[in-house]
Amino acid sequence: MTVALPLSGLHPSITDPVLRSISLLNEIMGRYPEAISFAPGAPHPQFFDEIDIERHVQRYSRHLRETRHLSEAQIRQLLFQYGPSQGLINDLLAQALRNDEGIDVAAADIVVTVGCQEALLLALRALCPSRNDVLAITNPSFVGITGAARLLGIETVAIAENEDGIDLEALQHECTRLRGEHRRIAALYVAPDFSNPSGTVMGLEARHALLQAAQAHDLLLLEDNAYGFTSPGEQVLPTLKALDRERRVLYFGTCAKICFPGARVGYVVADQPVAGGGREVPNLAAALTLLKNMVTVNTSPVCQFIVGGMLLESGLSLRRLSAVKAALYQRNMALLQAALRRHLGASRTPCPWNGPTGGFFVRIDTAREVTEALLQRSGEDYGVLWMPMRYFYLDRSGDRQIRLSCSYLNPDQIETGVARLARFLDEQQLLP
Amino acid sequence: MTVALPLSGLHPSITDPVLRSISLLNEIMGRYPEAISFAPGAPHPQFFDEIDIERHVQRYSRHLRETRHLSEAQIRQLLFQYGPSQGLINDLLAQALRNDEGIDVAAADIVVTVGCQEALLLALRALCPSRNDVLAITNPSFVGITGAARLLGIETVAIAENEDGIDLEALQHECTRLRGEHRRIAALYVAPDFSNPSGTVMGLEARHALLQAAQAHDLLLLEDNAYGFTSPGEQVLPTLKALDRERRVLYFGTCAKICFPGARVGYVVADQPVAGGGREVPNLAAALTLLKNMVTVNTSPVCQFIVGGMLLESGLSLRRLSAVKAALYQRNMALLQAALRRHLGASRTPCPWNGPTGGFFVRIDTAREVTEALLQRSGEDYGVLWMPMRYFYLDRSGDRQIRLSCSYLNPDQIETGVARLARFLDEQQLLP
Repeated sequence: MTVALPLSGLHPSITDPVLRSISLLNEIMGRYPEAISFAPGAPHPQFFDEIDIERHVQRYSRHLRETRHLSEAQIRQLLFQYGPSQGLINDLLAQALRNDEGIDVAAADIVVTVGCQEALLLALRALCPSRNDVLAITNPSFVGITGAARLLGIETVAIAENEDGIDLEALQHECTRLRGEHRRIAALYVAPDFSNPSGTVMGLEARHALLQAAQAHDLLLLEDNAYGFTSPGEQVLPTLKALDRERRVLYFGTCAKICFPGARVGYVVADQPVAGGGREVPNLAAALTLLKNMVTVNTSPVCQFIVGGMLLESGLSLRRLSAVKAALYQRNMALLQAALRRHLGASRTPCPWNGPTGGFFVRIDTAREVTEALLQRSGEDYGVLWMPMRYFYLDRSGDRQIRLSCSYLNPDQIETGVARLARFLDEQQLLP
Repeated sequence: MTVALPLSGLHPSITDPVLRSISLLNEIMGRYPEAISFAPGAPHPQFFDEIDIERHVQRYSRHLRETRHLSEAQIRQLLFQYGPSQGLINDLLAQALRNDEGIDVAAADIVVTVGCQEALLLALRALCPSRNDVLAITNPSFVGITGAARLLGIETVAIAENEDGIDLEALQHECTRLRGEHRRIAALYVAPDFSNPSGTVMGLEARHALLQAAQAHDLLLLEDNAYGFTSPGEQVLPTLKALDRERRVLYFGTCAKICFPGARVGYVVADQPVAGGGREVPNLAAALTLLKNMVTVNTSPVCQFIVGGMLLESGLSLRRLSAVKAALYQRNMALLQAALRRHLGASRTPCPWNGPTGGFFVRIDTAREVTEALLQRSGEDYGVLWMPMRYFYLDRSGDRQIRLSCSYLNPDQIETGVARLARFLDEQQLLP
């Protein structure tokens, strides 16, 4: 007799819509391969042509020879053997963050992780040990943070985004409410630069105000900066981490967009000192490293050599490394919004879509609830796909919203796709 | 004012000796770089000379062209873009398991993970949703399983190993005890082939008996087969998974030893049907894939291309791929035991070390407790390092044991190292 495991006997996160959302999307995209898809926030494939694994590995190897005087055998050992759990290229990342972001931390303050996703999971695990420790997230938020919390059984509370940041009164309210239950918000997840999915940019004053609120409520900020590199040069604002004078901010970075996703290399800056941690756990980065031993042991050194080589070729500048990419994404964002004006009508009031100047994503408000059945019809009858926003919210606020990504399409696909989308929205009476 | 996080406010697993053991070892090895170290179970570096990243990537690319008729652009997309969370090379692994292990599963029954460690974590998360779900592990066990349970807050119970398997009466006893508390053992972790750290091989009858016990107690078996490839050909026994007629066994594999650790590629066979899972969660592998989205998203396709190329070069045979490696480890194991006989005395009764015919590890019983201070003295004054066994046990049974690994040393290092070790054990009155 074959064992059959009841779904209800498995961990509840497996049946959580948040965890299913990614699979659902892949499934629907697989079903309509000819549809133009605005759904995934994946990098543009044209940049894959420039990647030369061998050259990047050699570039980082040369760096090791020249700066650390390693022999060929020692370099092969670093490349192929088990390696330090905290990472190999932490010094290069630290230098790049100094060069570009005004974030001045040591290599030992950084953990290199298997994508930013692992870094988020490790941070939640470290910072939320008990059910009294609640994670606050902006509403809406990237599904990866909600999903990681679900997997670890950490409760989340939603703090609404407003037009230039987050609702600090709502944050205050939640802190007070939880304190009354002898619980607390341990950390707040926020993406101040072109957040996924809403494209919100937090203004400079709002950044200062958020840092002050974090101090007042004694909570940490988890700053995800996956999309800041797409900011038009004259609009770049300092990151929360660059403004942070108290080490209240953990800074999460990904090389998926500025290098390539298949590297699975991300990192977290966690320079908070750990009181009582001694020589073994001097800072939060060391604590996260101990946890990482039990998740993935270490991040593939092959992948770190490749990313390290790319960083070195750019002169250790994330901005230089991503400049051509940023230009393409800005162009695509402008084309997407122009196409929306053309096909949905420029004079609608209120305009049903938002107009971020960077990032990958545009949000469209709809007149009625966006269901999975509608998404299937969109793929089947109109040849266009998009992302329902509901998965990004902890409440029902996203039920009448869709997300469009402009990142991996070409101009003609954007034009054709928006024309199809306009017909779909119109015929399905989804326009407000 | 800089934030300081109290260590006591972080997740308790961070201060667990199990999680610290790996860091401790690395730290001590870093402090005595000239010492001969029997501590890490790392592969021999001589095999790194044969790895040719470019060639392996090209080999797998050719396979994609020939069997799936992909274009160069599609291949670059698979190599560098986000990819399927469940894995790319599942079909090759399934074929290799059929060819070598008599394990007949579909590609969809396998999840490719960031090392075997991630697979263990995902399985524990899926199978132990509440505090009523307890994980049984052999005593001693690999620290990675204990550490993953600690990170997830899953309670563990220890089931003693005996000379050819595990103590089934103790298993029965624990099942009954937990049932009385309305709790249950959800799964038992076991490494039947040259387990780390004890080198135990479970006999054929014991394997059948364990499968029967698993059925009787309605629990799953987590079979870790990291070291089976080192078995002398005439001694190879069928894996639990090959004997499994009920899909009671999850089978965990790693490419760290048969390919190389830096690939960070492992996998799990989880072919258990999920009742009520529908099309989205037809089997446990699909459930683990949903969880993986929130841990590492997907395993680096670059690394999967490399491993895929190595598998193809071997004709999809794990045994052929690892034959030369297995021969070296068998030679080293014989040399280590011969050196122990020579330097510690062949006529000691009872013989203080065990004599496995494969695997990486030999255990030595000591006359008194092995402390970290003794390990430091061993490195400092005798120039030899080893691994205290205490971290592998849930109780004090390992306090008077050390583990030696023979895997990554050369014959002259084994000889010199054992001579140093003999002097250390003798002078420190550690011999029984």
